[in-house]
Amino acid sequence: MIRVHVAHTADLFRSALAALLRGEHSFDVTSGGWPGPGHRPEYAPPDVHVIDVECPGACSLLERLAGGARPEGAEGRLLVLAPAGRPGLLRRAYEARALGFVDKNGPAATLAQAVRAVARGERFVDGALASGVLRGWEMPLTPRELSVLTLAAEGNSVADIALNLRLSNGTVRNYIAAATRKVGARNRIDAIRISQGAGWM
Amino acid sequence: MIRVHVAHTADLFRSALAALLRGEHSFDVTSGGWPGPGHRPEYAPPDVHVIDVECPGACSLLERLAGGARPEGAEGRLLVLAPAGRPGLLRRAYEARALGFVDKNGPAATLAQAVRAVARGERFVDGALASGVLRGWEMPLTPRELSVLTLAAEGNSVADIALNLRLSNGTVRNYIAAATRKVGARNRIDAIRISQGAGWM
Repeated sequence: MIRVHVAHTADLFRSALAALLRGEHSFDVTSGGWPGPGHRPEYAPPDVHVIDVECPGACSLLERLAGGARPEGAEGRLLVLAPAGRPGLLRRAYEARALGFVDKNGPAATLAQAVRAVARGERFVDGALASGVLRGWEMPLTPRELSVLTLAAEGNSVADIALNLRLSNGTVRNYIAAATRKVGARNRIDAIRISQGAGWM
Repeated sequence: MIRVHVAHTADLFRSALAALLRGEHSFDVTSGGWPGPGHRPEYAPPDVHVIDVECPGACSLLERLAGGARPEGAEGRLLVLAPAGRPGLLRRAYEARALGFVDKNGPAATLAQAVRAVARGERFVDGALASGVLRGWEMPLTPRELSVLTLAAEGNSVADIALNLRLSNGTVRNYIAAATRKVGARNRIDAIRISQGAGWM
């Protein structure tokens, strides 16, 4: 049996994904809310952890995963659901050491196939994401710069972002300044506009 | 009609690829040898230029294409045939502004589909190359460093490489030194060994 845990901020999608995976033989599926820093799982640690990188808060979760130890509830191997059009999310998932990358717009069979590969410890990159992954080469921003800019775009202050990513206020300002310069923007808002327009975040 | 030109150093493969593409409606297929710097085409400039990035000399050709103007015989849009296991070749093709990326181990139908997309000016990235493209993110070397190291691995001297890529000898030495440091190698030969082992070149 492969233990799979599905985390999604929307209950409906979480249930639907879990139901879909339960249709597969040899999958033992649990599902739950978004794993926070102090989250305690009520289930046996899963072999594969499935998350949607477009969930609100995915940015912070991926940053925490990239930063080091798996938070409680995310001990298993990571499989992300992502759209092809946002290479920045793919890059951040990669930095968070995701093993599986599955197209959100793809067929259900691909997800099951990916879960099996990731459970074996193999990398799985959905072919439908190929062009998004290639666009990741074009992106001038580092995953950390993108995370900071994404949190800024969500309305967080420099202090909020610093707390969220465990950085100093000055470091957050430096990341924002670097991102603004690299994308050729005039200011922070312009940098957000350009980065969103390019599909990086 | 879409004019397609196939270039390959091996006559047999060139003919076979051309025959394969001639089986498609609406393709006007020519084929020829490898386009050198002073190469004069004997055919009308093609809409799509198909090359195999594993041909000997592909490295120099891609460098010339990345450097600026298309050499004679390569005016069309570029479609490359590449294996998934060598992300360095994919990166170099990308730097040469290739629009199409087709897996050498894939089905013939994908090539025809890619030719049509590239002829329309659209990017086409074969899904089978997704994992190779993602591995390109892991590669510490720039396309230029990889080209220099690849030419060194083929037995070229620093002076040969400099002439080939139109660089000074000192610049070539700097690229080799940077590549050696970045891959954590002890010397040039060690850098080649590590880079080949990782499938970057």
